[in-house]
Amino acid sequence: MRILGVDPGLTRCGVGIIDVGANRELTLVDVRVLQTRPTLALAERLGIIKAQLAAVMDQFAPDHVAIERVFAQHNLRTVMGTAQASAIALVEAYERGLSVELHTPSEVKAAVTGNGRANKVQVANMVARILNMGEQKFLPDATDALALAVCNAWRSGAPRSGTAALTPAQQRWRDAERQARKK
Amino acid sequence: MRILGVDPGLTRCGVGIIDVGANRELTLVDVRVLQTRPTLALAERLGIIKAQLAAVMDQFAPDHVAIERVFAQHNLRTVMGTAQASAIALVEAYERGLSVELHTPSEVKAAVTGNGRANKVQVANMVARILNMGEQKFLPDATDALALAVCNAWRSGAPRSGTAALTPAQQRWRDAERQARKK
Repeated sequence: MRILGVDPGLTRCGVGIIDVGANRELTLVDVRVLQTRPTLALAERLGIIKAQLAAVMDQFAPDHVAIERVFAQHNLRTVMGTAQASAIALVEAYERGLSVELHTPSEVKAAVTGNGRANKVQVANMVARILNMGEQKFLPDATDALALAVCNAWRSGAPRSGTAALTPAQQRWRDAERQARKK
Repeated sequence: MRILGVDPGLTRCGVGIIDVGANRELTLVDVRVLQTRPTLALAERLGIIKAQLAAVMDQFAPDHVAIERVFAQHNLRTVMGTAQASAIALVEAYERGLSVELHTPSEVKAAVTGNGRANKVQVANMVARILNMGEQKFLPDATDALALAVCNAWRSGAPRSGTAALTPAQQRWRDAERQARKK
């Protein structure tokens, strides 16, 4: 199963692709940051983002797309661009028949680090460990996109509450997840 | 010249098309409100809006597209959907090579009624007069879309400040505009 995470933005749009293996191990496939110049007209910026997202979806053919859920309350200066970039990602996924899920930033932080209020560095370190990325450094938007993909893989694989209700497969999933956190 | 006005929204997206004649008279071509059910997933709602906007652009082949400029400060409950619907309209216009302009609500009110703080009824009445719509009643989103198109026609035709700098064509335009207001 292949998951595309999108951290939407007009100036920088993070895109991360991971594979979920048969052993439930997560593998980094690709990560990049799509960028548009703020001097361009809004329509052109969105058009460029659309073309680049479409190219990524066509090249990597993900099964699922995870996009950050945007709230009007967050960062008023950039929220409109974020909402608009996320709309483009949503439609591109929809038109390809891909399943789409939205995750809030705190869901992502909680899934990846166990703490919904973790900071950027903590999230980046956990993502690097989970995906065995070693010492490679990425832009924050890139790491956030990968964190979204990891969150999506783990949340859809194993419900995080009511362990009594877990199937054997879900228990193995949960154990693998805990193991990755301890690395 | 044909202008498409779009009052973006997720639940109701107003779409109005007008023609600007050789005598600079404005004529109503079509007006409709695209709707999506709030119970649908966000990706599907945006996908439906995209398909409907694309159909309108293909059917009516506008030269210009005027879209309401959305601000994060406005109506927090609906602003995200508005921003996302506007992104779809922007990209559809961009991909067809159409020129796009964004107008703020107060620009539209000022252009149509002469008062940037006019209320909905005043705007609707002026739009009906300008386009000779008689007693037909439309949804507010429909009227707002037509007001955007009218604003676009008038603003691009005649600069509204510094009448000394107006060309003869622009002066005729301004006079036609004033005439319409007096009707």
